[in-house]
Amino acid sequence: MTVALSTERLWLDPLDPVRDAVDLHVAFTDPEVTTFKSPVSRDVQHSVDRLTEMVRNNDYWVVREAPDGPGIGFVGLIGGNGLDWLLSRGVWGRGYATEAATAVIDHAFRQPGVDRVEAWVDGANSRSLALARRVGLTERGQMPQSGPGTRVVLGKSREPVPTFVINLVAELEVDDVAASMGLFETLFQFRAAIVVGDPPTYASLDIGPWSGSRRLDLVAAEGKPITPSSLTVELANDLDAVHARAMAAGLRIAEPVTDRPWGRREFVLVLPEGHEITVSGPIGT
Amino acid sequence: MTVALSTERLWLDPLDPVRDAVDLHVAFTDPEVTTFKSPVSRDVQHSVDRLTEMVRNNDYWVVREAPDGPGIGFVGLIGGNGLDWLLSRGVWGRGYATEAATAVIDHAFRQPGVDRVEAWVDGANSRSLALARRVGLTERGQMPQSGPGTRVVLGKSREPVPTFVINLVAELEVDDVAASMGLFETLFQFRAAIVVGDPPTYASLDIGPWSGSRRLDLVAAEGKPITPSSLTVELANDLDAVHARAMAAGLRIAEPVTDRPWGRREFVLVLPEGHEITVSGPIGT
Repeated sequence: MTVALSTERLWLDPLDPVRDAVDLHVAFTDPEVTTFKSPVSRDVQHSVDRLTEMVRNNDYWVVREAPDGPGIGFVGLIGGNGLDWLLSRGVWGRGYATEAATAVIDHAFRQPGVDRVEAWVDGANSRSLALARRVGLTERGQMPQSGPGTRVVLGKSREPVPTFVINLVAELEVDDVAASMGLFETLFQFRAAIVVGDPPTYASLDIGPWSGSRRLDLVAAEGKPITPSSLTVELANDLDAVHARAMAAGLRIAEPVTDRPWGRREFVLVLPEGHEITVSGPIGT
Repeated sequence: MTVALSTERLWLDPLDPVRDAVDLHVAFTDPEVTTFKSPVSRDVQHSVDRLTEMVRNNDYWVVREAPDGPGIGFVGLIGGNGLDWLLSRGVWGRGYATEAATAVIDHAFRQPGVDRVEAWVDGANSRSLALARRVGLTERGQMPQSGPGTRVVLGKSREPVPTFVINLVAELEVDDVAASMGLFETLFQFRAAIVVGDPPTYASLDIGPWSGSRRLDLVAAEGKPITPSSLTVELANDLDAVHARAMAAGLRIAEPVTDRPWGRREFVLVLPEGHEITVSGPIGT
């Protein structure tokens, strides 16, 4: 059962879809508020349905400026530890979201068994990224989302959680490390972080522009037979452009570009040594 | 050539190892200041040598409270985009590090070709993590360091850099997905994020407690012959404990625990299907 909370300036009551839909419909029909929370509600009943779905298995609070004031937004805890929030545009810029989210995080950490909270934020949603950082969440990872771009995972733990596993590094045996480095750079903009030997017999590639990102190691087979491996490269966008580059590089395409039932657009390319790379991107790019 | 900079309260002059060593020796011999920048300098000459090495290919500034005041610390740009800093303990808590680092970041972004800055911070150094976040850097990844624990990579780009590759996911074909999930949990605390089928024919494991972390996919071979793959799991600590768990699980150890010349302690275990996992941790754990 969701319990009422309060902050210095705000009242957070358990969200009631029918009672609160009219107030929250204001936010749900504001295209600027719903940019990253599409779609815009068609009508009040649609907003009731959305709120009903939201509260089904989760804790949601309607946010008010006075005990009997109108709902100006909501904050939620999805599955006990997933932060969600939305405020009507008329009250932006007052620090309300920070205040309400902080209260909900404090509440979450008072629940038995909850030692971490996370927010999943569209990487293009700089306002929500800033809010998440302001309430003490920091970047933990990234995930694909249904549209183009990436969902940034930000999290906070009640107690510091020391890292145990730093990285999982895939390794591919290749005939020619330098040629493979060039191929991965052309296809995916992977970047050599470490190169050993001249000509290289080992290279460690970063998958993005930052140090310490997810890595791929290339190791010269040096005449030994190569057993093919399988990898998936998850793209935020430009899947068809990568497909075109793979074709231009003369790579074999084992499976053509296909929209998958799990909401991703994918194809499979085969490296000269037989390694299969599934390339996965958002549908519609 | 390093140019002089200034902020509202601080003067940043190009660091001169001989001139500045006596002042900075105060910080270099303070165990609390050098906790994450060992070792403590043996004598002033040692500090001169360290500073000489630091400025050889990098820009370093000595920080002063007055144009002719003593050096109270330094800020540096390693390789044009790697932030480094150290302040004497006597001036902590005044926001000087924030002020000096901000000036150096601004300076870096005025240089042609510099579009990103990074700081590599020991994950246990909460003071420096907080400073990096305060000057606008956010978590981008993690790297092993020479000792136990992990180095957190925080970065800031001049212009927003949209993510292109979100993730690189290694895939292992296995005979029994459920059994392999259990094995990876026992050995490495990997956590099933997605499981498909009952009994499972596919599972996607997160390598840490947070969503959106680096992933490993397990796919049921369903009778097809399995070609062995190679992976490296980089640990922040507890390598010998993982080795003991691998032995207890009856796994074959292809290469025993060995301290490698590249500063890591490693062993290679072989999964029942023949996949080779190099487990890599800091020396001395």
